[in-house]
Order: sequence, then structure tokens, then C-alpha cells
Amino acid sequence: MISIDRPTADLGDVRVTNRAAVLRHVRRHAPCSRADVAARTGLNKATVSSLVGELIEHGLLRETGLTENRVGRPATMLVLDGARYVGLGLRVGADELVAVAAGLGGDPVLTWRRAFPAATAGPEETVKALAALTRRAVTRVTGAERTVLGLTVAVPGLVDADGDVPAAPALGWRGVPLAAALRRALRDPGFPLTVDSEANLAVLAEQRHGPYAGTADLVHLTGGPVIGAGLISGGRLLRGSRGFAGDIGHLPLAADGPPCACGRRGCLTALLGVDAVIGRLLPDAGPVTDHLPEIERIQALARAGDEPVRTGLTEIGRLLGQAASVLAGLLDPDVVVVGGHLAALAPWLLPAAHAELAARTPVPPGVRLEASTLGSAAGALGGATAALATVEAGRLPAG
Amino acid sequence: MISIDRPTADLGDVRVTNRAAVLRHVRRHAPCSRADVAARTGLNKATVSSLVGELIEHGLLRETGLTENRVGRPATMLVLDGARYVGLGLRVGADELVAVAAGLGGDPVLTWRRAFPAATAGPEETVKALAALTRRAVTRVTGAERTVLGLTVAVPGLVDADGDVPAAPALGWRGVPLAAALRRALRDPGFPLTVDSEANLAVLAEQRHGPYAGTADLVHLTGGPVIGAGLISGGRLLRGSRGFAGDIGHLPLAADGPPCACGRRGCLTALLGVDAVIGRLLPDAGPVTDHLPEIERIQALARAGDEPVRTGLTEIGRLLGQAASVLAGLLDPDVVVVGGHLAALAPWLLPAAHAELAARTPVPPGVRLEASTLGSAAGALGGATAALATVEAGRLPAG
Repeated sequence: MISIDRPTADLGDVRVTNRAAVLRHVRRHAPCSRADVAARTGLNKATVSSLVGELIEHGLLRETGLTENRVGRPATMLVLDGARYVGLGLRVGADELVAVAAGLGGDPVLTWRRAFPAATAGPEETVKALAALTRRAVTRVTGAERTVLGLTVAVPGLVDADGDVPAAPALGWRGVPLAAALRRALRDPGFPLTVDSEANLAVLAEQRHGPYAGTADLVHLTGGPVIGAGLISGGRLLRGSRGFAGDIGHLPLAADGPPCACGRRGCLTALLGVDAVIGRLLPDAGPVTDHLPEIERIQALARAGDEPVRTGLTEIGRLLGQAASVLAGLLDPDVVVVGGHLAALAPWLLPAAHAELAARTPVPPGVRLEASTLGSAAGALGGATAALATVEAGRLPAG
Repeated sequence: MISIDRPTADLGDVRVTNRAAVLRHVRRHAPCSRADVAARTGLNKATVSSLVGELIEHGLLRETGLTENRVGRPATMLVLDGARYVGLGLRVGADELVAVAAGLGGDPVLTWRRAFPAATAGPEETVKALAALTRRAVTRVTGAERTVLGLTVAVPGLVDADGDVPAAPALGWRGVPLAAALRRALRDPGFPLTVDSEANLAVLAEQRHGPYAGTADLVHLTGGPVIGAGLISGGRLLRGSRGFAGDIGHLPLAADGPPCACGRRGCLTALLGVDAVIGRLLPDAGPVTDHLPEIERIQALARAGDEPVRTGLTEIGRLLGQAASVLAGLLDPDVVVVGGHLAALAPWLLPAAHAELAARTPVPPGVRLEASTLGSAAGALGGATAALATVEAGRLPAG
């Protein structure tokens, strides 16, 4: 049983809370004036001026030359300042590593991809590769006069609160103490290092930086070898008691479906995972280690009107709609966003998925089901965002 | 798109937050001394003394004669004071109305049941019956020198933020503006009146007053004609974008299962709803309006070792385990609690359900699956609890 005592508050907390409210307002409404911030947050103007001054001094906000068209004195406009601080996010994919460095506003100052077979290389080699990538990214970022405030690594699997990975079937990993191993490999990087599930970080990226930024009830379904879900409900990421929430890969969809690695048949992953989709639509492909070219082949065939591929995509779309209807019923989100290969194949999957979802949703207007626009960097961008969480929450950087 | 701006804070909020922390501590650890409260909440002793004094003055805490065995001066012990204020909860079941009045500690000062066929009577007659029950309960409570702080009505179905019920299939209701109608029938009751789903209120009751009180990640599966889920994640009730979260009744479990009211086959409700269970285990029962005697017949047959009933219960238990595994994967709760007829039949359902759940849960130790001990009053007790929410959150009653 986990304690749910929320912390008590003191006067310092008030300032932190209000600083976070100012940052949040500027994120959503920039460029905006101090007067706008005061009007929309309910804080008085003197408090806003003091908080904004502090945030400018610490390099979290900056003034632009813009002024607003209004009666009276022109106002100086505020935007988030991404120049001084960045968060660093890494993503361990089945066939690539991705690194993103981004400031508070989410504009990547660096996006690197490196082909890397994490599944066959194993955890030890992967940690080495992640450490090397981190060192290079930190060198690049600090060379540009920026400070890294933290690093968060996205892993497609279950991640506990210590950053251990008890199971990541998409990588064939079990019981990997990833955070500890990467900290050791980096020998005190000088900033906090955490690990989280790719699904959690992808939905965080959507919620902050995608077209659905600000949506309070949002689900991201990751593509890839194993389907996972990142869940935001009431504006908050759901983690569950052990941190394993969003493990939707074994949702039973078809009792007579294809066999799943878990020993049963017709699980979501066995039907919609990237290997299942390629296996079904390109029966000649054989076992695939590099998925992207095969997904591009499927896209080309679908565009050319290939009948078996089109029919297969429609059937897969129906199953996607069925899975989305379970999420819609249980969590009542505004939007379910699909990523990875499901986003790449969205033009052919979503029409059937929408029809299925509408048929299964009892009370209109229901949830929207959309393709992610963040691409395969979503998890890494979410990692960079998560690495800035303490600043977003109103704490000032130490530097 | 719903705004997720959290409110800013001011000095008054600090006091409210800390008052709520004191109440929460006393709820969980009573009897306890002011020094205990200070030690465990991190507040200084002068602040605790001031807050406790105020809470005693307003009838929310009281001192007991008890003292602690400790070195030094014996301490006066504190408990929640249920004598002055109560919340009122009503539950609209398929075949009964339940009223509960309870103080902050959750001890019911009144529990009334009234046989009432809400499904056949229709919304208008049900509102009349609820209004009459409310008036009698208020008279009883105020006659005992207590003040009603609010009323919350539990309805088995979808309830929106205005207290409208767009759909309650268990009652055959569609588009019933219940909160507005009941407010009209009561002609300004003098306290706030809200409506929520039975599943939400039942899980709130479990989280506050049941053996799982304080569990941060908790799911309650309601029994009855339609299976619904109340979801608490990270200590917070999940509502979703329109307030419809927890609608799990059409989770597809068996493509070749019995037909569901929704037009498909093998939905959770079509397999595990009370009518489905009675229909399967007592094929001679015909359509049932009063479920309790039939459930008691099933219990008697199971106790007597009736082979078809036992086998049927095992198969139903397996399906329950399958549904619980979906919830366990998606939300990673500590406990899934089942209520209604599922609790009544738990001795025969849970062994098979546990086996199925264990087989489907990838990483041990998994979720627990248990029977509710709160009985059919759970929703009403949750309503009484919800009616005290503003006080629990640290606001003082006006009186």
C-alpha cells in the first residue's frame, strides 16, 4: 500500500506554484505581455513582474521586441527562452538510437539518429552506445553555451521507479538496471539521469509539443515490435502502483488470432505490432531486423492500390479501432494518437479504425483517433521534456 | 480541448492545503497527538496547534480522553469528529434505492434501503422517490443536531459534469437531467447536490473507508446488470474528458459469446452482468427483476456442490480474471475490488480468476483481485463521502 499523503505547503511552495503557472501560461500563449499573464493567471501585476523578472534572470523567459496592438502604452512581449538550458532525451528503439536536446519550448536544438540493433547487441553494448551518444550530445550542447539540466532515456518496455527495466520484449531484455548502468558508464554526468517507458515519454511529447499540446485526456499508442500505451488523464501521466501502467500489448482481440510471444493468441501486439503487420502484408519478407524499408514497401503497394495489401490494412485498421474503443471506454480521452508504423500507415488504417470506433462508442461525440506527427523522435523529445520537469514545475535551475 | 491550467496559489491556499493534510493524517492514524501530526506532516507545532484548534472549533476534529504512553507529559489524542456534519449519499440500484448519511470518518449514521424498481418506474417516479427519501433523511439527520453538507447521488451509468445521465442501460435511462430534476423536486435543499456514476463513488468509498483505504492505485468493478469500473490512479479518481471514464462494460472478451445489448457478442456485461450470470447458472429462472434471491439460490447450489453451477462459476471466474488482467496491464493498480453479485459469488469466482490473472500478468508480483466488503451500500457511502469533499480538501463549513 502506497501512501497518498500529499505534501503540505509553505510560503516557498506558493512562489514555486506561481512560477510554474507563469511558465505554463507563456508556453501556451506566447508571445504575451505581463498584463496578459496577470489577467489569465489571477496573480496580481506586482507578483507577475517579480516572477517574470526572476525567470528572465535565470534564462527561462525572454523579452521579444514585439509589442501588442492595444490602447495605451505598448507592452513588451514574453516568450520561453530556449537559449540557456536544455533537457536531453535518448530513445532506445528496436533498430535505432535517437538523441534529442530541446529547450523549454520543445524546439529541438539537436536531433540525432544512429542505426543500432539494441535487440541483438544486448544491454551491455547498448549502454556503451548510449553513453557515447550522451557524451557527444553534451559536448555539442555545452559547446553552444547551453547547460544540460537532465537526461531521460526512453525504453520500449516496463520501467520501474528506479530506472530498472524488468521486461522489454521489443528488445529481448529482462531485468536490466539501465539507469544505474548508464550512470556508471557516464561517471557522474553532473545532471539527473532517469529512465522511463517510451510510451510515457511519447505521450508527454504529444501533450507538450504536438498538435494536441494542452489536451488534458490523451493516449499515445506506440508502434514498433510491441504496442504500448502512454496515458494522460486529467492532465497527469498515469504510472500505476509499480510504474507499469500502459501495458496494453496483450489486450485480447481475437481468440483465433495469430500466436503471441506470451503463449496465447490474438493479443494486440500479435496483431498490430510491426512484425505482425509486415508478416501479414508482406508474407515474402521473412524475419525483418530493419523495419523501415518494409513499411515503405507497404506504403508503396497501398498507394499503387495493391488489393491484398489494401484489404489487409483495412482489417488491421478495424482491429486498431477495436483497441481504441477499449481505451475510449475506459479512459474517455479526447484523442488517441498512434505512433511508429501505425502513424506511417495511418492513411490506410484510420478510415476503417474510425468506422469501427464509432460503431463501438455508445455516446457521441466520441474520442478522436489520429496519427502522431512527431515521428520516431517522439520518445526522445518526451525524454528531453521530462528532463526539464523540475524547471517546468517552477524550480529554478541551480546554475 | 480542455485547459489544464492548474490554479495559482496564494497564502490562503497554504492554510487550506495544510488543513487538509492535518485531516488526512488524523483520518489515517487516529487517535494521534498534535506532536504526531507535526512530525508526520512536516508542519511546525505552532501551525499544527493553530490548525487543530480551528478544526476542533468547527466540529471536524475532537479530542479524546486517551493519552499516549510516552516519556514526558501525556498527550491529548485527536480523532475525526463525526458528530456535527454529515454528507448524504443516495444510490439508484436496479431494484433498490439506498441512502447513507456519514460523517468525515465514514461511519454511517444512517443506512436505509428501499425496494424500488427504478428500471420499470422510469426517471420521473425515481426522482420523486429520491426526493422523498432525501427529505426523510435530512429530517432525521437535522433532528439529531447534525448538519447536511451535501448530497451526491450514485447512478449506474454515464454521468456528465452537470449531473445529466446520457445513458444508464442498467436502468433503461437515456438523456436524464437527474441533478437538475432532483434539485427542482427538493426546491433548493440548502446544500450542494451532485450526481456521479456508481462506479466512481464505489471506488471512492473503497479508497476512503474499506480495507483498501489509502491505496493510491485502486479499481472497483461494480456488479449489477451492467459492469462498470471506478478508477483511482495515483490517488486520484479518473474522470476522462467528458466524465465517462470507467465504461468497461463492452470490453470484448469472447467473439463467440452471448449477444450483448450493444449488438455485438461476448462483451464483459453480456458475460458477467448479473442477468447474464443468473441466466447461465439458473437456466430455469427466466427474466429476473429481483436479483438477490436468485444470487442466494446460486450461493446455496454452489455450497451444496452442484456440479453445473460450480463449473459455470469457474468459467465466469476465468472471464473475470481476463477482464482484471486488462485493467492490471493498463493501469497497474495495487488492487482490483469487485462489488455487487461478483462479491457475493467471490468464494467460487476468485480462485479461477486469480489463476487466470496470474497466467496473464507478465511481471510478478502482480495486482490483487479481491471482493468488496462494503456491500450494496458502497455507492451510497461513496456519495456521502463525495458530499464532504470540500471539507476534506481543507475548506471550513460555512456553519
